[in-house]
Amino acid sequence: MDEKIFHELISPAHTKIVLMIMDGLGGLPLEPGGKTELEAARTPNLDALAAQSILGLTEPVGTGITVESGPGHLAIFGYNAFEHRIGRGVLEAVGVGIDLEPSDIAIRGNYATVDAAGVVTDRRAGRICNDISKELSKLLSTCIGDIEFQVETVREHRLAIVMRGPGMSASVTSSDPLKNGYAPLAIRPLAPEAEKTANAINQFIERSCRVMESYTPRPPANMLLLRGIDHYPDFPLFPDLFGVRAAAIAIYPTYRGIAKLVGMQVLQVEGNTFVDEFQTLEKHWNDFDFFYLHIKDTDLAGEDGDFDRKVKIIETVDQLMPRLLALHPDVLIVGGDHSTPALLKGHSWHPVPTLIYSNCVRADNIAEFGERACSRGSLGVVPAKSIMPLALANAGRIMKWGG
Amino acid sequence: MDEKIFHELISPAHTKIVLMIMDGLGGLPLEPGGKTELEAARTPNLDALAAQSILGLTEPVGTGITVESGPGHLAIFGYNAFEHRIGRGVLEAVGVGIDLEPSDIAIRGNYATVDAAGVVTDRRAGRICNDISKELSKLLSTCIGDIEFQVETVREHRLAIVMRGPGMSASVTSSDPLKNGYAPLAIRPLAPEAEKTANAINQFIERSCRVMESYTPRPPANMLLLRGIDHYPDFPLFPDLFGVRAAAIAIYPTYRGIAKLVGMQVLQVEGNTFVDEFQTLEKHWNDFDFFYLHIKDTDLAGEDGDFDRKVKIIETVDQLMPRLLALHPDVLIVGGDHSTPALLKGHSWHPVPTLIYSNCVRADNIAEFGERACSRGSLGVVPAKSIMPLALANAGRIMKWGG
Repeated sequence: MDEKIFHELISPAHTKIVLMIMDGLGGLPLEPGGKTELEAARTPNLDALAAQSILGLTEPVGTGITVESGPGHLAIFGYNAFEHRIGRGVLEAVGVGIDLEPSDIAIRGNYATVDAAGVVTDRRAGRICNDISKELSKLLSTCIGDIEFQVETVREHRLAIVMRGPGMSASVTSSDPLKNGYAPLAIRPLAPEAEKTANAINQFIERSCRVMESYTPRPPANMLLLRGIDHYPDFPLFPDLFGVRAAAIAIYPTYRGIAKLVGMQVLQVEGNTFVDEFQTLEKHWNDFDFFYLHIKDTDLAGEDGDFDRKVKIIETVDQLMPRLLALHPDVLIVGGDHSTPALLKGHSWHPVPTLIYSNCVRADNIAEFGERACSRGSLGVVPAKSIMPLALANAGRIMKWGG
Repeated sequence: MDEKIFHELISPAHTKIVLMIMDGLGGLPLEPGGKTELEAARTPNLDALAAQSILGLTEPVGTGITVESGPGHLAIFGYNAFEHRIGRGVLEAVGVGIDLEPSDIAIRGNYATVDAAGVVTDRRAGRICNDISKELSKLLSTCIGDIEFQVETVREHRLAIVMRGPGMSASVTSSDPLKNGYAPLAIRPLAPEAEKTANAINQFIERSCRVMESYTPRPPANMLLLRGIDHYPDFPLFPDLFGVRAAAIAIYPTYRGIAKLVGMQVLQVEGNTFVDEFQTLEKHWNDFDFFYLHIKDTDLAGEDGDFDRKVKIIETVDQLMPRLLALHPDVLIVGGDHSTPALLKGHSWHPVPTLIYSNCVRADNIAEFGERACSRGSLGVVPAKSIMPLALANAGRIMKWGG
């Protein structure tokens, strides 16, 4: 594990690091020869910062690989995202704000529809409306023996289910056939110690079906499909690994959850915009020496295919930069967890523009923050996990290595 | 081991390679927007050479890691410096010019002061003056049973101690508590075969204390603290690995020592300036086909925080370049083992500007040798250990690989 060498060399210092992640920051031009969202945005503050920074592009886990938020964030947090995985069930659970305990098992679920023969006709139960979904989830939460099942609607048919109780193991199969036209599968244990867990889940599914059947009016859902059955991830904790008192500032539960899983202290944000996040940063500036600041809106605009909105959001963030710089961070990283080009309406594999500013960075003297500007930077195209070591080095927090 | 693939492909050729290492070459601007030492220096010869070279930047062992001279040199010599380590004791011993034998054990030591209760009050014995330190070291050199202890002052309180004798093992603990306020620790064996070694060292420390006590006038030192207790490193030898008759030209003992550890023939330099080193290169030009030429002064100026002096040294080296080029090396590498920016007054993690010249290099056509110029070069930012394979390829010494 690469992280370990840094852990050994960590030395304390009175320096502050800010890692500002604009989710899905990287983009693409809408037309050949055009500008990306970031290039099209008027960003005088980020451009001025770029002039005093090293520039480059980050790849979350590997060339050509498009990542979900989980590994994208783990990578930019300095982890080898291939070695350290957050299961989909866990990500779903933390995404709805469930406070997971290490012995919990988390499951990603769907409300689905099966026909009289028990064959899945709609894996999404007609995208069941949120109200009914939430009502059902309340009714489905129950205990099977000494195992408690907490069911939470993510949205529409999507569920996060958490199992809490003694003697469990996540070594079980899924029930989701992943396609319409097939019957759900019974959950099977993959190891002797998982027998209790598999039995409990099967009983829970049976009970859930009965509850849905007796619900009035008859809901479009009459089956649960479960997959991503995971235990709590066992990560080396970020504050230990890198010797920082780390705070996370994020409005969205998923990112609050990931930050918590790696051991950051998740701060309460008053309000629900990224402007409020900047205020939270100011408020807690003296309490921590590392801040992860997450801006979700860039990704949402990209997912919606809304190039202009993504440009506007970047411009608004740019206008907030003087507030951040007024705090005089010793090291400031501006980057992203992955690209989300409006052109593709989704995450993509394209490397993510990144700048690292400090007073001892060997600046590239490129006064522009954009994909092509960053590709001329001295950082090059680097694995996202190499950003934290560089940040720590620039913060005077890594001792000399002697061999 | 990466090096092995090259070893398999090595083929002899009548070509000559010069690896010129300007120690701590990489720098930083003193002010944002300014020039680095190398950029500020007037270097018409290096600039002209750069125009015919590929340019890039090297990282000794990893992004963000600041290295000591040992791993910095092993990396630029083509070794994986994480796998092949030179212990601190060995580095200290070769640094004072001790001709280590493979069965020796080398130790890094300190003269220290302890109080009546045996607690360390000053790990550096008031930075004891060189004269007394050297006088004491002579008196402390002794034999314990069949083991000879050679004690040499590095400077002030710092010592290199070499143990020579049969049946030793370096698997022992240190005696240095590393902080004032603690008592020295007894040396303990970490393996049965190290018992004799541990006993000998403990007896040696006891005897040393008695010698210091009876010395008149009473010296500030009354204790030895020992750490970095290492055996001789077991490296694949550079000449075998890369199929070259390799000579090292270096004035400073540390670099002569490292070169010797990897199997280079260390040439005698008449004089003690790098001008004399160039003369040595000329004198031995016909005797070897690989020359490691080490220039220490750039690093010393950087360590002293003397930007202008570092600039001047680089300019002086530049003026010597025509003498080197007049020898018509087939491959010439100009680079460094690490950065030592005057701004930071010490080694740093910043990548090191590097050029590779040969008559079959695909030149970048950048007529400038400097950090930012190199960051535009086609070599990119590369691990230092990839320089030797490139040098060998350019020297026509690597066969085609078929799979």
